[in-house]
Amino acid sequence: MTIHHYELCGADEKHVFSPHCWKTRMALAHKGLDFETVAVPFTKVATVENGEGRRVPVLRDGDTVIEESYEIAKYLDRAYPDKPSLFNGEGGEELTKFVISWSLTQLHPAVAKLAVYDIHNALAPEDQAFFRQTREKLFGCTLEEFDAKFPKNGEALATALVPMENLLGRQKFLGGDSPVFADYVVFGALQWLRTTCSQDHLPQEGAVADWFNRLLDMYDGMGRAVKAPA
Amino acid sequence: MTIHHYELCGADEKHVFSPHCWKTRMALAHKGLDFETVAVPFTKVATVENGEGRRVPVLRDGDTVIEESYEIAKYLDRAYPDKPSLFNGEGGEELTKFVISWSLTQLHPAVAKLAVYDIHNALAPEDQAFFRQTREKLFGCTLEEFDAKFPKNGEALATALVPMENLLGRQKFLGGDSPVFADYVVFGALQWLRTTCSQDHLPQEGAVADWFNRLLDMYDGMGRAVKAPA
Repeated sequence: MTIHHYELCGADEKHVFSPHCWKTRMALAHKGLDFETVAVPFTKVATVENGEGRRVPVLRDGDTVIEESYEIAKYLDRAYPDKPSLFNGEGGEELTKFVISWSLTQLHPAVAKLAVYDIHNALAPEDQAFFRQTREKLFGCTLEEFDAKFPKNGEALATALVPMENLLGRQKFLGGDSPVFADYVVFGALQWLRTTCSQDHLPQEGAVADWFNRLLDMYDGMGRAVKAPA
Repeated sequence: MTIHHYELCGADEKHVFSPHCWKTRMALAHKGLDFETVAVPFTKVATVENGEGRRVPVLRDGDTVIEESYEIAKYLDRAYPDKPSLFNGEGGEELTKFVISWSLTQLHPAVAKLAVYDIHNALAPEDQAFFRQTREKLFGCTLEEFDAKFPKNGEALATALVPMENLLGRQKFLGGDSPVFADYVVFGALQWLRTTCSQDHLPQEGAVADWFNRLLDMYDGMGRAVKAPA
């Protein structure tokens, strides 16, 4: 039975840009599983699969419906144990949560400061209204005021990435010689920036840049195929 | 045969304060292994176990001599597989390197800015001279100038600890219900501050404070027994 992956999309249904959905995309590809994307705009997310207040990604695999990228990754490892593991054991599954916490608290704010206005502009009109309302409430100011607060360069992001840059100078992936879900967690944050921001503020050289390019090339260039709207 | 643990010490041989040696202390206790500390002042570190340019911790276990706290932890897990694991599998062993990289690049600088002058003052005279010479070369200024540059409060450290604070609000340890080596990596950085700094700049409340207190209490309060010199 086909796996359905409910993913956030922009005005263009093919424009999938959510960091969390990219984690799940890469996890599915890692497992070698075919899946069908069900593109969901912001205003439809809460009602996916008859849920109440759901958040994407949501995965339907046969009769099983799971929400949240880390939960989905754990499900995939249990449901498909013969495919390459996303965690390589219980210890890896636990420490992945630290990488998630680090990425959410250090990388996501840096990306949001660069890309929030571009994200808004990439949405369909009714989703723009929803996005503006929810984010302005969160930020306590207008999107334009938020956007104007922060310099548009990659310095804050590069600073946040120092622990990755330091480690990836000595190994190919967080998982060692091959990637694990923790790699996709960090990939998701940078891919969110790459697929939304009108300017390229990603590291252009160094260990993180090389690592990101390796991941963009994997799985038939699945990551590279999606670009920010012109 | 007794395990010997070569550990950095201050003017008082009982004053063991190195973050890296504390990682190994906790790892040995985690494994339930008895060990004997061989206290080593800064000026003697390079010649431990007839080495050339060694760095502590160094562990001698029978005929085996190992250097560097992560390598020691891996050795302990392999040599004593019947005792509780420090990594819980290959994935945990790999991701521990990210926690190490994060701690070294985010926590250690924050601690050094608070404690470097107190560390100097806790050393024997010949070690003070060595410490001053090596650190002033590293910092490109005198110890006094370095110390004067940074405000003496816990704000920068608390900011660096946000990924831990966020995660430990939902679970007891980085390892889940019980600690793993990654917990001891972060513990080492905070214990370094606690055992050297004349003022207490550690988080006083919240998830990290609770977690740190739990670890200080473990293993018969081994961590709590060592204090900063009066």
